[in-house]
Amino acid sequence: MSWIKQELKRRQELINQALDKFLLPADAYPPLIHQAMRYSVMSGGKRLRPMLAGAAAEAVGGSLDMVLPAAVAIECIHCYSLIHDDLPAMDDDDLRRGQPTCHRVFGEAIAILAGDALLTLAFEFLSRLSEQPEGPPALVVLQVIRELAEAAGTRGMIGGQVLDLEAEQKPVDAAGLEVIHRLKTGALIRAAVRSGAMLAGASPEDLRSLTAYAEELGLAFQITDDILDEIGEEKETGKPVGSDRRHQKATFPALYGIDASLAMARGCVERAVESLRDFGEAGRFLRELAYYVLERRS
Amino acid sequence: MSWIKQELKRRQELINQALDKFLLPADAYPPLIHQAMRYSVMSGGKRLRPMLAGAAAEAVGGSLDMVLPAAVAIECIHCYSLIHDDLPAMDDDDLRRGQPTCHRVFGEAIAILAGDALLTLAFEFLSRLSEQPEGPPALVVLQVIRELAEAAGTRGMIGGQVLDLEAEQKPVDAAGLEVIHRLKTGALIRAAVRSGAMLAGASPEDLRSLTAYAEELGLAFQITDDILDEIGEEKETGKPVGSDRRHQKATFPALYGIDASLAMARGCVERAVESLRDFGEAGRFLRELAYYVLERRS
Repeated sequence: MSWIKQELKRRQELINQALDKFLLPADAYPPLIHQAMRYSVMSGGKRLRPMLAGAAAEAVGGSLDMVLPAAVAIECIHCYSLIHDDLPAMDDDDLRRGQPTCHRVFGEAIAILAGDALLTLAFEFLSRLSEQPEGPPALVVLQVIRELAEAAGTRGMIGGQVLDLEAEQKPVDAAGLEVIHRLKTGALIRAAVRSGAMLAGASPEDLRSLTAYAEELGLAFQITDDILDEIGEEKETGKPVGSDRRHQKATFPALYGIDASLAMARGCVERAVESLRDFGEAGRFLRELAYYVLERRS
Repeated sequence: MSWIKQELKRRQELINQALDKFLLPADAYPPLIHQAMRYSVMSGGKRLRPMLAGAAAEAVGGSLDMVLPAAVAIECIHCYSLIHDDLPAMDDDDLRRGQPTCHRVFGEAIAILAGDALLTLAFEFLSRLSEQPEGPPALVVLQVIRELAEAAGTRGMIGGQVLDLEAEQKPVDAAGLEVIHRLKTGALIRAAVRSGAMLAGASPEDLRSLTAYAEELGLAFQITDDILDEIGEEKETGKPVGSDRRHQKATFPALYGIDASLAMARGCVERAVESLRDFGEAGRFLRELAYYVLERRS
């Protein structure tokens, strides 16, 4: 197995263990909601965002370990958004990560509440970061909470989802598509990188470089996501192939074709790696992760 | 007009102005979501929770003014919960505060997202409290974020809503009803009082007394809410009379009858007022508010 695949696996396991430790047990009262939360969070997932938070901390001299509680919070925000996006009133999806979506298993009411609960829990986790021994200063934690709340809000993920819903009714051009992706996926990826770096005490220059990396990586990730939706293997991606097309979603392949989309993703990855030029060995994982985005199959 | 009614009106206006100032304008991009958020937040409401935060601050030597941004955040959390509770998958209500519910006007998808956005925005506002000139210390702000996140989460409001949904299928006894109300309504009222007090630098003893006040007031408020649902005037309460009964919801009047419920509410109010005995004139509003809960018509 290549170094990057081994590292992805190792870090995924660390993050999964932390998620398992931080989430309330499935039999906590009232059990139904805690079961639904665990069902959605613990059913696979690449853990890209928490991993990025950890790797950004690493790049500035920290470690994944030291930002694990924040990484868990970031994954909770991501999972909440997936649960709500899958709802019948939104994208009406039956499968997520190869398994029935939360509302298919627990019903719509509990799925809405499980999403709400994961979003709320994320902020609870964040509010407790300074309680750890040698935890980050309270002011930095507040900056991270602000960063993540803005990324999750109407000028971030939620705004992107609104535009995405509107795009089902009217055609979207290239500029429109980039805005949707920057808000819907890019904002949280960017905030994950920035949060990890901030918690590890990044200098303003390092934070700027890492932000540039995150913006390019986020776009590359979204483009390859669109490509995988079009030509990926359902048993690897866990999603029905061609679902974007059936929903008449605007995607990069739909607007530019597969080849040009791949070339765009490659350009993003090159710029992402270039922005890490001053990080040396500490930036290795972020660098190899960027290349990996181009060759991933899921 | 009595002193308490004048004060309620004056404070409501202050809070409404602050909400109007803090929420993004209705034409902020993307407009649909900001319209929906404003529609739900600005369409009336007693503003009980933000008012309690301000009054608790007052009781320990602070003021409503100094906790207004936190009060706004608390009202956003409350409004998010109303939007989601009203959804077709939950209580399926058409009217709220005398007007069509958010999903009736904007559709289910936008209503879900507007709720999500208000919850997220609340934490953004809270994360910025220390940025004000003479704002509270960062550590206190983190305590307040934790307080509110816990109250909004599965051991608070969301847990209460889950139990409330389950109660539609199976009969609930007196103990069960108290748990539902303590979580669904009581938790945020308690957290509002505690947050206001904490931001104003309350001593541990004062915080304990105010917490006791909040718990009794919250229960009194819920009991009188149940009574108003049964015998109130639709044009005053803004809700269809008897809707709890039609939904076969467990309520205090259903379990105990109107008279015994009123007696219970009166007991709560007496204990609430008793817990304010050491606050003198600074506790006047909280005291009169407790009595007012018994005579309110909406």
